[in-house]
Amino acid sequence: MLEKLKEKVCQANLDLVKYGLVIFTWGNVSEQDRATGLVIIKPSGLNYEGMTPDDMVVVDLDGNVAEGKLKPSSDTPTHLELYRRFPEMGGIVHTHSENATAFAQSGRAIPAYGTTHADYFYGDIPCTRALTEEEVKKDYEKNTGVVIAEAFSGIGVMSLPACLVKNHGPFSWGKDSVEAVHNAVVLEQCAKMARETEMLNKNAVRADQYILDKHYYRKHGKNAYYGQGGNT
Amino acid sequence: MLEKLKEKVCQANLDLVKYGLVIFTWGNVSEQDRATGLVIIKPSGLNYEGMTPDDMVVVDLDGNVAEGKLKPSSDTPTHLELYRRFPEMGGIVHTHSENATAFAQSGRAIPAYGTTHADYFYGDIPCTRALTEEEVKKDYEKNTGVVIAEAFSGIGVMSLPACLVKNHGPFSWGKDSVEAVHNAVVLEQCAKMARETEMLNKNAVRADQYILDKHYYRKHGKNAYYGQGGNT
Amino acid sequence: MLEKLKEKVCQANLDLVKYGLVIFTWGNVSEQDRATGLVIIKPSGLNYEGMTPDDMVVVDLDGNVAEGKLKPSSDTPTHLELYRRFPEMGGIVHTHSENATAFAQSGRAIPAYGTTHADYFYGDIPCTRALTEEEVKKDYEKNTGVVIAEAFSGIGVMSLPACLVKNHGPFSWGKDSVEAVHNAVVLEQCAKMARETEMLNKNAVRADQYILDKHYYRKHGKNAYYGQGGNT
Amino acid sequence: MLEKLKEKVCQANLDLVKYGLVIFTWGNVSEQDRATGLVIIKPSGLNYEGMTPDDMVVVDLDGNVAEGKLKPSSDTPTHLELYRRFPEMGGIVHTHSENATAFAQSGRAIPAYGTTHADYFYGDIPCTRALTEEEVKKDYEKNTGVVIAEAFSGIGVMSLPACLVKNHGPFSWGKDSVEAVHNAVVLEQCAKMARETEMLNKNAVRADQYILDKHYYRKHGKNAYYGQGGNT
Repeated sequence: MLEKLKEKVCQANLDLVKYGLVIFTWGNVSEQDRATGLVIIKPSGLNYEGMTPDDMVVVDLDGNVAEGKLKPSSDTPTHLELYRRFPEMGGIVHTHSENATAFAQSGRAIPAYGTTHADYFYGDIPCTRALTEEEVKKDYEKNTGVVIAEAFSGIGVMSLPACLVKNHGPFSWGKDSVEAVHNAVVLEQCAKMARETEMLNKNAVRADQYILDKHYYRKHGKNAYYGQGGNT
Repeated sequence: MLEKLKEKVCQANLDLVKYGLVIFTWGNVSEQDRATGLVIIKPSGLNYEGMTPDDMVVVDLDGNVAEGKLKPSSDTPTHLELYRRFPEMGGIVHTHSENATAFAQSGRAIPAYGTTHADYFYGDIPCTRALTEEEVKKDYEKNTGVVIAEAFSGIGVMSLPACLVKNHGPFSWGKDSVEAVHNAVVLEQCAKMARETEMLNKNAVRADQYILDKHYYRKHGKNAYYGQGGNT
Repeated sequence: MLEKLKEKVCQANLDLVKYGLVIFTWGNVSEQDRATGLVIIKPSGLNYEGMTPDDMVVVDLDGNVAEGKLKPSSDTPTHLELYRRFPEMGGIVHTHSENATAFAQSGRAIPAYGTTHADYFYGDIPCTRALTEEEVKKDYEKNTGVVIAEAFSGIGVMSLPACLVKNHGPFSWGKDSVEAVHNAVVLEQCAKMARETEMLNKNAVRADQYILDKHYYRKHGKNAYYGQGGNT
Repeated sequence: MLEKLKEKVCQANLDLVKYGLVIFTWGNVSEQDRATGLVIIKPSGLNYEGMTPDDMVVVDLDGNVAEGKLKPSSDTPTHLELYRRFPEMGGIVHTHSENATAFAQSGRAIPAYGTTHADYFYGDIPCTRALTEEEVKKDYEKNTGVVIAEAFSGIGVMSLPACLVKNHGPFSWGKDSVEAVHNAVVLEQCAKMARETEMLNKNAVRADQYILDKHYYRKHGKNAYYGQGGNT
């Protein structure tokens, strides 16, 4: 079932390697099929080398495996919690990409220092609170989705498609798995440049809101004029 | 029209990828045809992968498309403003290269700490002031060219062929698109080494003017003796 | 003798190059044959380029060469000291990988700032004390194993499979040479992210113990649920 | 003349690109022919791409071109000054490699923080004083050799085969061009790790002299026991 989507999700997972966001088995990509609500996700602990569309696992929103000979990613409950809460999300990515993870480990949001950030993310990229001991001991992966949702109360997830989970690493998303991977790459680059900005100027401040607005809205929404009139 | 120049400008754009200065659609190169005054530039939001000379867009100095099936780069008005104000510029490059962008985001000029810098840039590489809200809301891209020009009042653009736009990123230029790309690569490397110099010595100071002079003038001008007697 | 194991150890040594952990002759991998107790190790000062299984050296636990036309790595006595003291170790790796070496040179343990670290290492990665002048002058390489052992008094070596030797560099280990190399790669990545975490937050603190526990034990031990039910 | 040596020196120059020490035309390698005293060096300002042994220039110790259709490197007088003063040098390399140049720009020596450094360099890698205005205006390149020599008064050049020229960049050397390139690679790696060591510990101190001695002398001199009994 969903053979074409399996191919797409498999490729999106392999793209994490191509873009240098993961090594070994670190990271996973999923996409939700809009018609059936089923989610396709990478298997748990499988190496990217030699991974094929057939290895992808199909689960429903309650986490039941609908198809697949392998166990789904251990992070599946996080993905599902996000899909349940935010139907606008079509694809989700989790990595331990170096610079975004360093921000997560430092417990800090990534400040919107410039237009590269603003072209994709409307505002600082939030860092969740730490999970409590109870949240970790019971339903840890589901609760990771819960604290992400908490960090977005009052923020539109589609205009700020990434989040850092404290002491863990980044999640990003998009209308599908391709856009989610794209955002994961941009997130890592923005995190790196934000760190370097602070090295050059300890008192660096975020860019003026009107320049952040300008860049975000020249690429997104009804008045966008960047690109050839398609998406992105 | 201008088929040979389209090939050259297309290749110059692809070289940004080769030199690691851009990912996705981030960045653009243009060159002005000296005979006609027309400018050839990358299309807006187009991926580098698979880009061909035929995709290049030809515009006149007022921004009218003279040829091309795609929309020109959204940064075209910046390029045109610079070509109008500085006829010596033959090629212009804009990127979000990591270290130069970090300087731009920190709001600082790149100090001339050494001879690598002085071999190409006669003085600190300036960072523009922030654009005002009015400059951003109306004619934003043109005004980006205006603040670059402001930063060069009293400075020869051809002896200091790069500028940082505050909170945005670097622009560089040269007698043609090839030289502009070359300068973009050097700019990024100088930015990186300047940052690392400051990490090693918080009180680092720029090199003595006479050593900066020596290096700049052994490569440029009538007494140059570096190289084989051609240009660089 | 042990031809299959020589192939495996040779490949593990070459993987150090593939993963960017060594240049030139810097680094070495060994594995102990469980049946005979013999250890297979890289020859001393040999370049990785062109290295073949035939170049591997077989030594017994007292350091006598059982087979091989080349001298074993000068670090062999360190490997042997560790195999003698910790029979659980099946493979050992030594590199001068950049970020782990920087920690070793700074004389600091690598703090467990996040889940990437906790997925592999149960606790901070210790840095040994400096060897005394006497320990350096006599049996230096053996004593390097001694100070590693000292740093692990009260710590299980298999749940924290890496150590920094002060002013020198990292050692890592595992149930075999493949796992030891895997841990060397993870160690380097954790060291890099730990450094970057501190750049972003001078007062960064290690993750809560319950989240470190959760990640370590979801991958290791009888209640592990990460992966497909095999190892890692 | 000296066709075999031209091949060797050409390859050594190309190896600077392979090892990531140079871009464009930045850097040069030379080697002195022991029999004739002639020096073979890279041409000035020539790109590495497409460079062949035929492009190499042969000069005598006074700088007269003995053979070659191109002008020798503008840094030739520095090389010659060093060959004249230090007959033990057989090959010399100059680069603008990133981390070594950052140290040169910061005006600091590279401290011997660990055994990687000590394996190759017996002591801190010195940084020259700045050249005076007079030294820059007249015989600049020759005087660059003079200040390097000054920095080595009382230090054996062959046991500490590298130097930083203030505000400029690194020079390294060896018994031939291959060893000089090897040392240039190690220098860059040691500079990088030294910078990272200081990031982790502002009060980092150099390793104890007895451990530095141990590592240097286990690879060099009559009691060396590292390697297979040949050189390095």
